Amino acid sequence: MATVSERLWRALPATAGDVPVDGAVLTSAANCRYLSGFASSAHTVFVTKEETYFLTDFRYGEAARKHCKDCRVVTYQRLEKSMEEIIRRHELKNVLFERQTMTLADADRFGKLCQGLGVNAVWDNTLDEAMQSIRSVKNPAEVEKIKAAQALTDGAFEHILPRLQAGKTEREIALEIEFFMRKNGADGVAFDLIVVSGANGSQCHGVPGEKTLKRGDFITMDTGALLDGYHSDMTRTVALGSVSEEQEKVYNTVLQAQLAAIQTVRAGIHCHVVDRAARDIIDREYPRTFGHTTGHSLGVEIHEWPYFGPACEAMTRPGMVMTVEPGIYLEGKFGVRIEDMVLITETGCENLTHSPKELIIV
Amino acid sequence: MATVSERLWRALPATAGDVPVDGAVLTSAANCRYLSGFASSAHTVFVTKEETYFLTDFRYGEAARKHCKDCRVVTYQRLEKSMEEIIRRHELKNVLFERQTMTLADADRFGKLCQGLGVNAVWDNTLDEAMQSIRSVKNPAEVEKIKAAQALTDGAFEHILPRLQAGKTEREIALEIEFFMRKNGADGVAFDLIVVSGANGSQCHGVPGEKTLKRGDFITMDTGALLDGYHSDMTRTVALGSVSEEQEKVYNTVLQAQLAAIQTVRAGIHCHVVDRAARDIIDREYPRTFGHTTGHSLGVEIHEWPYFGPACEAMTRPGMVMTVEPGIYLEGKFGVRIEDMVLITETGCENLTHSPKELIIV
Repeated sequence: MATVSERLWRALPATAGDVPVDGAVLTSAANCRYLSGFASSAHTVFVTKEETYFLTDFRYGEAARKHCKDCRVVTYQRLEKSMEEIIRRHELKNVLFERQTMTLADADRFGKLCQGLGVNAVWDNTLDEAMQSIRSVKNPAEVEKIKAAQALTDGAFEHILPRLQAGKTEREIALEIEFFMRKNGADGVAFDLIVVSGANGSQCHGVPGEKTLKRGDFITMDTGALLDGYHSDMTRTVALGSVSEEQEKVYNTVLQAQLAAIQTVRAGIHCHVVDRAARDIIDREYPRTFGHTTGHSLGVEIHEWPYFGPACEAMTRPGMVMTVEPGIYLEGKFGVRIEDMVLITETGCENLTHSPKELIIV
Repeated sequence: MATVSERLWRALPATAGDVPVDGAVLTSAANCRYLSGFASSAHTVFVTKEETYFLTDFRYGEAARKHCKDCRVVTYQRLEKSMEEIIRRHELKNVLFERQTMTLADADRFGKLCQGLGVNAVWDNTLDEAMQSIRSVKNPAEVEKIKAAQALTDGAFEHILPRLQAGKTEREIALEIEFFMRKNGADGVAFDLIVVSGANGSQCHGVPGEKTLKRGDFITMDTGALLDGYHSDMTRTVALGSVSEEQEKVYNTVLQAQLAAIQTVRAGIHCHVVDRAARDIIDREYPRTFGHTTGHSLGVEIHEWPYFGPACEAMTRPGMVMTVEPGIYLEGKFGVRIEDMVLITETGCENLTHSPKELIIV
């Protein structure tokens, strides 16, 4: 199988301006993790035609030498010095840099380095977009990792249902979900877990707090695990004890919107088509209550390109893994969101989420 | 008491170039959290002479209106549009931006916006350095938060000591420490906790793995809690069952180095003096085994400016809270690190860490 660096060279243009591209420097945590298979807080990946280097500092040298894949590990005292050695060794003339996550401060350092060595530094979005495109299509091994992360998430949902009891705090519930996933092997949570109940449910990204669960509350749990570098993401909203007619109607509207959106998913369509399918149903009944996009890709990051959003013109491709997560938020009253992850195929999609999503009253 | 924005105006120069500074835009998570008191993943703080704005998106609007301090909350559809309104409303002419964390992509967006409105955008380090300086000196309320976070960390150390048993994995120990802190009120951990044992101990930033604890292992635990936005940080190395003569000698060398460094700490000295005090002792006995700096400031971030490092020319000031954490790492054998947090005073320092640090054999 081609290494990621080989895939990167195939995805990159042969030249930038008039000069052949012969080097690429990646500094973002996600891209460095993706290319090397190793996570650390000191990471630069320098890709040349002949060799891919993982540059890190003293603290991570030993671990990097153990865990980096397809990379030669260089431990630096000063990053620029090690980059200079690579540029000289490979006689590089035209080096691409990331743009989206590159800070002005780093661009300064690297720009000066290149200038001093007579190297043309390219700062446009070429490298970001190539990595984005490569990462958006998951290979079977990546899909397996996402499925394994989701299995932990499904397990945690089953684990928590009987523990949703009046008097417990949102925070206790969130902690119990997290501990379950981590005790069962998760490397961490995919993001700060969201558990919001009652009127807090209208904050779609609320923080679990000291509010206690009460009979009649909707409880929205947006949860996911991080396993072997890959993320899962699922939201379920369940009712405690009873539901009002309004709650039931809102729930079913979100569910219909979510099912309709999933129904539209297949390779070769614009991402906004999926968003539209969910949004049309919600807007008809509850206009101006669905303020976020319908879904996002995920993988080594919890949010990746592309998005199921009104403005996303990207085309879906087989192997993309994306969430479908419409919601309705009634400020001061309650909120509902239902979210699955789907693997896009030529003819439709495979739902990677196995937790039930009909209205559950615990 | 002066609001943070008022302190920021006092710290900023009156002019940039020849033009009076009348606006400052902060986009880094830590600075936005520090200025607003509110954490979210969509955050821009726009400071003008008359008013400070917290700009966020739909998802965080409700929570931001509840929790932001001294800020007017603006929920945007498009960030640039909201920034334009502020620039027009306050008739701004000269706006400072952060540099250290500003990405090229964001600099583009904001640069274009300013150009279109005839506003002078300043991208140098002025704003970063002003915030860095303000944040480096903690007020009494901040010190209390750090102490509270450290109390959880001390508690977790006491909790874990009797649970350090042969056969348990590093990972289980790390999880048990984390759960203890979070069940007792921590909002999270201050960083991915480090628990490394035996030969793994020479990786000063190793990841807790499936290695089981064995009699004769040194176990290094670098732990900290996040509470109310503030971090704590402590490292202890303890022995399981027994120690060799070499282990004991290394441990005592690190301890002497740490005590000597703490002894030198007071306001009004160069940061490198503290590093030197620890390094001299280690270099004498174990040259080339102490590859990191002796300590760092911390607060709303786990690593803040300044550093106790060989190259840090910054002067210590009363109210700085910094770690003192020398270590010796013998690759393939074991490692030892001992870390406390100290509050710098005019005449010395107050040690905020209360866990014992004489050699413990459990």
